[in-house]
Amino acid sequence: MSPTLAELTEAELLRRLARFAPPDQLSDDTAALAADARPLLINTDVLVDGIHFSDATTTAMDVGWRAVAANLSDLAASGAVDIDGITVALVAPGHTRWDWVDGMYQGISAALGQYGGVLLGGDCSKGEQRLLSITALGRLGPLRLHRNAARPGDVLVTSGPHGLSRLGLALLQNDPNVRDIALCSTLRDQAITRHQRPTPRLKDVQLLLACKPEHLPWRAGGTDSSDGLLSAVAGLCSSSGCGAVLHNDQLPTAKGWPEGARWTDWCLAGGEDFELVLSLPEAWADAWQRCVPESQRIGQINAEAGVIRWAHNHEPVDTNGFDHFGQP
Amino acid sequence: MSPTLAELTEAELLRRLARFAPPDQLSDDTAALAADARPLLINTDVLVDGIHFSDATTTAMDVGWRAVAANLSDLAASGAVDIDGITVALVAPGHTRWDWVDGMYQGISAALGQYGGVLLGGDCSKGEQRLLSITALGRLGPLRLHRNAARPGDVLVTSGPHGLSRLGLALLQNDPNVRDIALCSTLRDQAITRHQRPTPRLKDVQLLLACKPEHLPWRAGGTDSSDGLLSAVAGLCSSSGCGAVLHNDQLPTAKGWPEGARWTDWCLAGGEDFELVLSLPEAWADAWQRCVPESQRIGQINAEAGVIRWAHNHEPVDTNGFDHFGQP
Repeated sequence: MSPTLAELTEAELLRRLARFAPPDQLSDDTAALAADARPLLINTDVLVDGIHFSDATTTAMDVGWRAVAANLSDLAASGAVDIDGITVALVAPGHTRWDWVDGMYQGISAALGQYGGVLLGGDCSKGEQRLLSITALGRLGPLRLHRNAARPGDVLVTSGPHGLSRLGLALLQNDPNVRDIALCSTLRDQAITRHQRPTPRLKDVQLLLACKPEHLPWRAGGTDSSDGLLSAVAGLCSSSGCGAVLHNDQLPTAKGWPEGARWTDWCLAGGEDFELVLSLPEAWADAWQRCVPESQRIGQINAEAGVIRWAHNHEPVDTNGFDHFGQP
Repeated sequence: MSPTLAELTEAELLRRLARFAPPDQLSDDTAALAADARPLLINTDVLVDGIHFSDATTTAMDVGWRAVAANLSDLAASGAVDIDGITVALVAPGHTRWDWVDGMYQGISAALGQYGGVLLGGDCSKGEQRLLSITALGRLGPLRLHRNAARPGDVLVTSGPHGLSRLGLALLQNDPNVRDIALCSTLRDQAITRHQRPTPRLKDVQLLLACKPEHLPWRAGGTDSSDGLLSAVAGLCSSSGCGAVLHNDQLPTAKGWPEGARWTDWCLAGGEDFELVLSLPEAWADAWQRCVPESQRIGQINAEAGVIRWAHNHEPVDTNGFDHFGQP
């Protein structure tokens, strides 16, 4: 059986972790990156056992992958064009098996291999609860996407369907809400993959930069939908002092997504889909949609500060969001 | 009474945290730093309640200050000449009072005000145990200090006395070992300040760069003594494939430090003094010691790989170190 962390000396733990980092990276407490002519983007995200992952639904490899994907998604939603790497702070009880740590770092390596960047060191400590804190570093392209840069008249677009990660979680938990529903196997597979192995939309940012109509300035509102689609739209609106209209016949759902209140809720507030949510001038939105087949137009930005309404009945959309410290 | 974190909405929490960061910094999930011609140094450290701090000995402000100091000390020990800032991941139970969080961020701000850098965002999550994970970013000067760059013939020097932080902890805990010992009040005050408000030795790195004899190349071994003086020396030796000789009549202790086995242990292995431990050619060590009055010569590096001996009797020094996951 795999040893526990308490059974490994610090030197042995470091030796085992070293294979996930570039040669000699872990010999010093700090990492160094060569000077770069582009501004640096920095993002920190923390994932806590029992809140952001659990053994019941997330393998160790998936925990590592998801942690990287969540961070890189934030960098993408700020305009990153290149990933330098990440630092990882790991806290875990002494009885945690090395196998879990090993699998988690394998997931981290796999995601970095896919999207770029290397492990730039980190820290380990004993603690009561497993958790990861990841800081990701990347380079900014010509456009800094800001949450506060939406403008009335913009079109709201997203890079893909929403609710899949929430559905994937329900399927993995054998949730009664999905037990007796006929879902096509493609949708099931897509949902579980989305939950376990989300994709940061770095490529869609490259396409956004490549397709900007020449007459438009480098200004676009942007965020990702890690806390849910509606929360992303609400964030754009409140930071920008704008409002939005959403079209209930343009909800970004996957093919075969069922009808009904629960399914609309999961699409709007399921969270962790890690898609881009962008506020763009119409011509730019059109150009981007031609490049990103999964993208969808979901509404418009207007001047009614802080209010999100449905287009069909002008009723406000209920925007109860995710609360980091509240009770679930 | 101050509200608990569970009683604050996420928006309200963000609003309260915003005053610690530059304007608009927390509006996006990522921070950006302008391009810089110097390489970037990165360091991540995690501080866990009950291991790295406790309410009994550390105020909220001291927790914040110590967290920053620990990170900046690692940057200093790698050759940082400028601090960009830090990200902070905070995990805490929902019943944590806002006052504690506020005090902790005040400590962070005070330390950043003293040593440079700004709050570059971060993340918050509910969790069973309070902890902080800090990633610090700084700029490298002309010399990258490496743990693996010690060479036989080098002199071992440190920027100041050791054991003070451990003594400070003992005094704060009213440890029986220090209850009946006559210690001068200057030493007591110095020890408690060292424990609560350690100083990252960024200035001493600037002096090291300024005083290099022209004929010597930019090569020096370096680390900090966060895990104890002996652990720092052992790290330099094992990473560099060298050994060391220590002089028991040159232990770097503070004025008025008592004699005896316990006091020698605390000097060698107390930890958290955050002094520089450098391996330098003799001429450079001499020049640096003239600039840094608190500095002390503690021994030499030799070719006997992995062995640290006492100079007076050639016996190996016992190097049992701090183990991140083991039982205390």
